[in-house]
This record gives sequence, structure tokens and C-alpha cells, in this order.
Amino acid sequence: MLTKLERIQKDIEALSAFNDTKGEGLTRFSLTEADRGARDYLKSEMKKIGATVYEDAAGNLFGRLQGTDSKAPMIMIGSHFDSVKNGGNFDGPAGVVMGLEILRVLKENDIALKNTVECVALIEEEGGRFGGGLYGSRAMKGLVTAEALEASLDSAGISMAKALNAFGFDAARIGEAKRNPETIKAFIELHIEQGPVLENEKLDVGIVGKIVGIRQIKVRVYGRPDHAGTTPMPMRKDALVSAAEVIASVPGFALAVGDGTVATVGTLSVLPGAANIVPSEVTFTVDIRSKNAQSVEAVHKAIEEKLKALEAVRGIAFDVKTLLSVEPTQLSETIISSLKASADELGISYKDMPSGAGHDAMIMASMVDTGLIFVPSKDGRSHCKEEWTDYDALQKGIEVICHTVIEMGR
Amino acid sequence: MLTKLERIQKDIEALSAFNDTKGEGLTRFSLTEADRGARDYLKSEMKKIGATVYEDAAGNLFGRLQGTDSKAPMIMIGSHFDSVKNGGNFDGPAGVVMGLEILRVLKENDIALKNTVECVALIEEEGGRFGGGLYGSRAMKGLVTAEALEASLDSAGISMAKALNAFGFDAARIGEAKRNPETIKAFIELHIEQGPVLENEKLDVGIVGKIVGIRQIKVRVYGRPDHAGTTPMPMRKDALVSAAEVIASVPGFALAVGDGTVATVGTLSVLPGAANIVPSEVTFTVDIRSKNAQSVEAVHKAIEEKLKALEAVRGIAFDVKTLLSVEPTQLSETIISSLKASADELGISYKDMPSGAGHDAMIMASMVDTGLIFVPSKDGRSHCKEEWTDYDALQKGIEVICHTVIEMGR
Repeated sequence: MLTKLERIQKDIEALSAFNDTKGEGLTRFSLTEADRGARDYLKSEMKKIGATVYEDAAGNLFGRLQGTDSKAPMIMIGSHFDSVKNGGNFDGPAGVVMGLEILRVLKENDIALKNTVECVALIEEEGGRFGGGLYGSRAMKGLVTAEALEASLDSAGISMAKALNAFGFDAARIGEAKRNPETIKAFIELHIEQGPVLENEKLDVGIVGKIVGIRQIKVRVYGRPDHAGTTPMPMRKDALVSAAEVIASVPGFALAVGDGTVATVGTLSVLPGAANIVPSEVTFTVDIRSKNAQSVEAVHKAIEEKLKALEAVRGIAFDVKTLLSVEPTQLSETIISSLKASADELGISYKDMPSGAGHDAMIMASMVDTGLIFVPSKDGRSHCKEEWTDYDALQKGIEVICHTVIEMGR
Repeated sequence: MLTKLERIQKDIEALSAFNDTKGEGLTRFSLTEADRGARDYLKSEMKKIGATVYEDAAGNLFGRLQGTDSKAPMIMIGSHFDSVKNGGNFDGPAGVVMGLEILRVLKENDIALKNTVECVALIEEEGGRFGGGLYGSRAMKGLVTAEALEASLDSAGISMAKALNAFGFDAARIGEAKRNPETIKAFIELHIEQGPVLENEKLDVGIVGKIVGIRQIKVRVYGRPDHAGTTPMPMRKDALVSAAEVIASVPGFALAVGDGTVATVGTLSVLPGAANIVPSEVTFTVDIRSKNAQSVEAVHKAIEEKLKALEAVRGIAFDVKTLLSVEPTQLSETIISSLKASADELGISYKDMPSGAGHDAMIMASMVDTGLIFVPSKDGRSHCKEEWTDYDALQKGIEVICHTVIEMGR
């Protein structure tokens, strides 16, 4: 008989085999043969445990252990099982394996809970195939329409509706995936941290209080395309030099507002883009994240103030567009307390931390009491083949949630 | 009968009609129908003047007025008549019109010079069709081989050899375009400034002392591709933030060394180039130009020092490659003095200035005594449809050279 640790390792390794880019990280897009393989493995494991297996109209997979009180709302545990292109073996599956393992523990110990427990394996959280992302949870909130499924195309032009139908689902019935929040007592997700904090601080798990608010802005700086040889330095309106002054200031703006606020310029393009022409137009994005909405706003404002100052001094012009703006999400204080109590009881070290990335828990938190546990990411890496979490570290995260589920369901 | 000013305007306007992108600036690539049209116009005007018309094996066009001393070396005057894509009506043709107009003045005033005077219309200075550039003058220096003509392809894959042959030239005989420097007493070019200095200082012409040295370097900065949401600011190795600090410093480096040194970051690319990933690699070019080679070197060094400092503090890595390095070119002191004397005599205001751009005069200066006159560019613009020089301003430049040619040839 396998130990818990061995079961966890076996689950992760088994799921990792369903991969369209072997040797170059894991690629498991939704509603592909790799999805089918992983889904069949999960169904088979759920059945072995004795869970009732079903799929909703959105293509999410569930394994259900019926509670003793048929009127009590369920505890839903899990995460997603799709991946980004050339991603890793843990982003998503770690949380699904958590759900599976907790079902096993409940069953093998004959723990009869009042509440039904459902392990969920959500699809298309990454949006790797059809774009957008957080699809499985959005469908459970009733945010996905049949029209949207027709309009969401993969790179080959296949709509998500067509892909769902080809998989044996019925895209026209997507509305049926919507959950009544009153039927769910709690949603608890486990996810890899995707950052270096837990590893650096040598802590077992992170207990997430808030999922950060995100604002992405697109900045355009306009200068003048002068000849790089014949235009004296003081007579230039160089869009890139001004953009560079802003970009070099961005880390300082984030650090100044504190709260762990982060800000990143990840893309930049230059026009006309010739070595011998002074740049006339530079476009860059800034991704600003903080658990405090005011901190996001403050960084956004500091960037605009800097641009205004440069406009006055350097004669450039600019505009700023907001591409994306999501408010911070507070997770359930009740669940946070329960998770901390469980960690304390089990002697598992933890820290309160925000989630810097969006997760299905963000959508679920707008419907039902939601919790989210992080387990350490080696070197902070994710979305790449180097993505790694030690199995015993993953086990600790699972044990915290398992303890909480049992406490909640007694 | 037309005035000189009207003749100049007529020549520029006539040449401007041979344009493959009417309404979107002037595009006249070498060895195209537009080239043929301009070439035929120039031949026809040269013949009207009474000049002997010939073309060399490279495709350069000449109009020759024989001097009285058959042993005296010639005075060659002119510029190129090809253009960049979507360029203007003056970059190149202004200097060809100078040559044509001086032939007219010599002929109509029966000025018999000792030296033969040849007006030259060079091709492919811009390298717009076949890349590289400065082709016509390089061919006269003997730097172009038949093999190079086979290897130089336009965007349709047609070799310059094939294009020359289709035009009636014989690419195999390119070597015959090489000139014996002893047969040339002087090469004098007129070109638009392509910068704002003459206009700003309300001066008629620029008398070029040096053509700047140019160094183009490619800088690569290496960081780490962390998640933009989950990686705290102090734990990042952001390649773009470090690159931005360098780029924001570049203008200061150029100003600090003085000498009118200029430095420009004209291209930049970011990897992986996603809004939510910290940049792991940034590549940018720096184009450094100065009349003093040490100033070029000093800016290059300052950039490397800045990178080293960032390597130590921010944990990034970098490398720097030199893409292009051309030493400054000193033009002929004799011709500079003659041009100044002519300007003084004619009451035409001038300033000593370097040329921040490369010109055929740069190649010719390595063979024979060479001079270069700039005429003002409206708003400093060039290589665009807004490129403009007032006809009376162009006329002043022509008069300075005409006076010098007559003085030299007496």
C-alpha cells in the first residue's frame, strides 16, 4: 500500500504524462486528447475511492462524497487541470490532487461528514487554448453564455462551443453549469505560489488573505522621428528616453506605496524602430498589483505624474489607457481562521500572504466563502518546465486543507 | 528665359515626378523605372547644356565639360539621385541639381576652365533597394566586386548584378568604374543638412569640416522571467528596468563628452514580452556619433560602466557587441578654405559644422580632396515627405560651390 506521499507523487506524475509537448514543459490545453487522458485518470481515481463522478455542462469534472445531512451545503475543494503552453506539472494539478487525496483520506478513515465534499477539476483556467481564462469557475458563476462559447476561438479557428460538443458536452446547455451559491458552504483551493516568498522564508504554506487587485495600463509616449546623426541632443524629442525615465522609476513607485505592491513593464515597442532614427513613439504596458486598491491607484497616478513632468520638460506627449482593472478580492475570514487553526494544530508553518496572481478562488469568492492555500514554488518559477514543488511540501498544504474540511464538516 | 532660381526649382520638381509612391513621399530606388525617368531627364538636361554624357560600369551618370588643359585632373561635383522608401525630394537630388546648374552657368557664361568639370549623379547611396549604401562612390573607389553585385539582393530576390544587366549595364565589368584618384582634383558635394541647426541659427550654408565617426553597438541585458504578480520587487532581476536606467543616462553621456557628440537608442526589444512577466532579456542598439573618435569611445565606455554598475547592484548580466565602427573623416582643408572664401565673397552666411550623417563625400575623401556643403532642412526633417529646402536657400549653396569651382579651375 502506498503512503500518502507516494499517492500524491503518483497522481502528479500520472497527470503529467498527459502532455502535448513532452521534453518542453507541460502543455495540456482544454478539450484536447491530453485533457481526455488526464480527465479519464481523474475519473478512474475518483471511482476507485468510491466517489460519485459527474461533469457539468461547462466540462468541469467532479467527484462527490455524499454527506450525512442531505440539506447541508457542500464543501468544494480542488483547482484546475489545464496548463499554459510549455508550462509545468504543478500549476493547477497540485490543487486537483489535493481534492483527490482528501477524498481518499475521508473514505479510508470512514470519516462521515455532515456536508457533502466535492473534489473539482476545473478546465480552461489559464485560457491557453481559448483565451480569457478562469472559465470553469466563471461558468459556475453563470458568467459564460452559449454565445461566448461560439465566439471563443482557438488558434485553429475552432470555437469552444464546437470543442465542447465534440467532447460529448452540449454547449447550448452551458447555463446549467451555474451553481446556486446556497448549495456551497465553502470553496477551498490549493495552488503553487508561483513566487519565491515561501521558499525564501522557509515556510510550509501561505494562507491567502486577499487576491490582489490588478490594473494593466498601456502608455504611449510621442516624440519626433529625427535623424540620429544630425539632430543635436538638446533639440530632440526622444520618445524612448522619456519612456525609459518612466520605466526606471516604476519599481520606486511600487516600493514607495508599500503593501507588497508590485509593478512591471513587460512589453515595449519602439517606432520607427531604426538604429539611426530618434524614436518617435514608444508603447509599453504596466501591470500593477496590490492587495490595496489605493496602492494600485497611487502607482498609476505616480506614472501619470512622471509623464506630465516629462511632457513639460522634454516636449513629448503621452496618453494612458487602462486595459484591465480588477479590484482586490478578500477571501473568507472564517476559512482563513480555520486554515490557520489547522496549520497550528498540525505544526505546519505558514504566513499570511496575498495572492499576486488571479485564481479560480477569485471568482468563487464572489459567490461563496472561499479559501486559498499556497505551497512553495522552487526558485519562484512557474509556467515553465522548471516549475517544481516538493511532494512533501505539497502534502503539508493538503493536510492543512484536509484538517479544515474535516473540522468544517463534523 | 528662366532665372537661375526657376531653373533650380524646375530641376527639383522634374526629378520629383519620378517617384513610385506619389502622395506618400518620394521613393526612387536604383535601377527602377523611376531611376530610368530621372536618369533620362538628367541626360537630356546635360545634353542641352552641351555636356558630354556617359555612364560608368556601376550605373553612375556623368555630364562632362572638357577643360582647356587635357592633362589637368577633373573637378567632380554632384551627389546621389536615389532615395529611401517614402523619402523626400531633396536628399540627393539637391546635390545633383547643384552639378547640373553649375555646368549651365559655366556654359552660358563661356567660362573656360583649365580643369574638366563633371557633374555626377550617383546611385544607391541610400541602399534603399539593395542594402549597404554609398554604392556609387564605393564603386568609384573600386570597393565593389562582381561577386558583391551577385550577392546583393532586393526584397524581391533580384540581385544588383541582374538589375544592372537588365538596365543595359554589364555587372561583370564593375571594376571599370574604379577611378584613378590622380585624375580627380576635387570632389565637391552639396547635400541637405537633415538636421535643424542651420534653420535654428538662421544661416545660409554649413561648410563641413568632418564627417562624424559612427559606432553602433548592440547591448543585451539579461534578467530573469519572474511572474509579475507573485515576485516581490526586491527579488527581481528585471532586464528592462536596468536597460531603462542605461537608456535614460545615454543623453547625459553624450552631452558630458561635448563636441556635439550624439547618441541614440533607436531600437529595443523585450523577451518574453508579456504584460505579466518580468522581462528576462532586452536588446537595444546605441548609435554614437562624433567628430572626435575619443568622444565616441568615451560614450561607449560610459555605457559599459553603467551596465557594470547595474550588474553589481541589480544582479543582471549583459553583453555589448560593436555592429559598426567608422572613424571620423576629415575633409580637405584646402577646399574648406576655398568654400569659405567663396561664401565671404558672395555675402553668404555659413558655419563650420560636422556632418552627422554619412555621405558619398565620406568615401570620396579617402581618395581625393573633398568638400561638402549643407543647405538648411526645414524643421530638420528628412527621409520623409515633409523634407524641404527653400529653393533660394538651395541656390545659395550652389553659388558657393560654383564660385569655388571657377576659382579652382581658372
